[in-house]
Amino acid sequence: MRTYLECIPCFFRQALEAAQMVTNDESKQKAVLDAVAKKIPEFPMDATPPEMGITIHSAVKKAANHTDPYLHLKNIYNEKALSIYPALREEVKRAEDPLLLAIRFAIAGNVIDFGPTSNFDFDRELEEIRTRPFAIFDYEKFKKALSETEEVLYLGDNAGEIVFDRLLIETIKKPTVYVVRGEPIINDVTVEDAKKVGIDKIATVITNGSGAPGTILRLCSEEFLSHYQKAGLIISKGQGNYETLSDEKRSIFFLLKAKCPVIARHLGVKTGDIVLKGPR
Amino acid sequence: MRTYLECIPCFFRQALEAAQMVTNDESKQKAVLDAVAKKIPEFPMDATPPEMGITIHSAVKKAANHTDPYLHLKNIYNEKALSIYPALREEVKRAEDPLLLAIRFAIAGNVIDFGPTSNFDFDRELEEIRTRPFAIFDYEKFKKALSETEEVLYLGDNAGEIVFDRLLIETIKKPTVYVVRGEPIINDVTVEDAKKVGIDKIATVITNGSGAPGTILRLCSEEFLSHYQKAGLIISKGQGNYETLSDEKRSIFFLLKAKCPVIARHLGVKTGDIVLKGPR
Repeated sequence: MRTYLECIPCFFRQALEAAQMVTNDESKQKAVLDAVAKKIPEFPMDATPPEMGITIHSAVKKAANHTDPYLHLKNIYNEKALSIYPALREEVKRAEDPLLLAIRFAIAGNVIDFGPTSNFDFDRELEEIRTRPFAIFDYEKFKKALSETEEVLYLGDNAGEIVFDRLLIETIKKPTVYVVRGEPIINDVTVEDAKKVGIDKIATVITNGSGAPGTILRLCSEEFLSHYQKAGLIISKGQGNYETLSDEKRSIFFLLKAKCPVIARHLGVKTGDIVLKGPR
Repeated sequence: MRTYLECIPCFFRQALEAAQMVTNDESKQKAVLDAVAKKIPEFPMDATPPEMGITIHSAVKKAANHTDPYLHLKNIYNEKALSIYPALREEVKRAEDPLLLAIRFAIAGNVIDFGPTSNFDFDRELEEIRTRPFAIFDYEKFKKALSETEEVLYLGDNAGEIVFDRLLIETIKKPTVYVVRGEPIINDVTVEDAKKVGIDKIATVITNGSGAPGTILRLCSEEFLSHYQKAGLIISKGQGNYETLSDEKRSIFFLLKAKCPVIARHLGVKTGDIVLKGPR
């Protein structure tokens, strides 16, 4: 997905919110906005939005004087999600369609707003995800692809959410390669998050070699690309991965909630809708 | 009022919306955003937001290849407002407190969104303005200042809204100097608007000599400043005039609806509140 002009005001909103989370120094917050502003005139509109995410969050790291300013918050979210994981695992086991319920919970992980200033209510969000209709629901196609593949390549998204990814991987019961970001960026998953929630015990964890908040293939490592090229089924979580891979002609299934109007329009759904979207 | 960091994402949103109104050419729309982006790093945060308005709207004029891209829309709003003016004038005449009702209608002019893409419902907006409580209501102070002054300096804001200004000026019945912008900018009032709605017949119309969407004193003409310095009572309509004059120690009464959270916070009111705020 390309960058739309509507993304530009949103880049500044995101940059300001991110800067305000890591420093109270207004001149440092302004420096983050200046870094984004300087990038705008040269930013190619056919690039995906997470390319700008790199600019935004490297400026935020500089303002915070820390390479992982969200570390503490990521840990909080991982722990919160882990605390309800056993109950959800039991519920999935007993479900009429365990795979579908695990998919729903994995989307719930993405539905729940892990923006560090938000208070979120797991119970309410998870309650809703059990019955919310999918706006795009390529479930039969997904099950077919799953039955035909020997290995699943699973592209993670956020801390906290990763616990729900674990539950889906355990439900799928196929050899899985779980992909995290190559560097900390916002609250996106890293190797440390994968270890903290025990995904390393049930899947092979690799990084994509890039510090973008998405999967920008030209920035990814050889190791990741070799997995990507041969994968029979790719599960892609969240908006950042969708934005960077939506034009790819591969067996990718996007699991996400459309949280912004630009992505919703690109998907042909409404803001707030949930989707399980396979290849066309 | 200074510029707050929250204004920066909003500058880009406004610039995009304005650009989209005057051209369908995405590269021209992007050029408007680029012009704003280039200005951000050098923009002094102690300047008022309308200083950036000049940058935004000179870029919009360039994109539109027209010095007054909103001319047609301003005419539509003037005509719509003029069509209900006679009935409102009668209602004010019969009112228990004609001055207060005329003030309410003058704020309604500012309440009604004259953003050119909006459909607005005069009747509903005006109905609400009749009973909406003021969040700041310096009415007694206003009446006292009015009784003591020989002349009123009235700072206009938007096309359409100017018709309601006329009704308030007619109700006040004091010699009035009505001030319009020195150049077309957005849908702000110009000499042409003043003539179209007949304000020139009941007041002396002057321009402030500047093309800013507010009253930036250092950019205003000598003629305007001489009126401003001697005025016993200044009525200031709308957000742009508030943003640029809120720190002035003069007998200024601000009539406006707080349409954005930054201005609401600066006023100590809630977004959507209406105010009649005099000097402290």
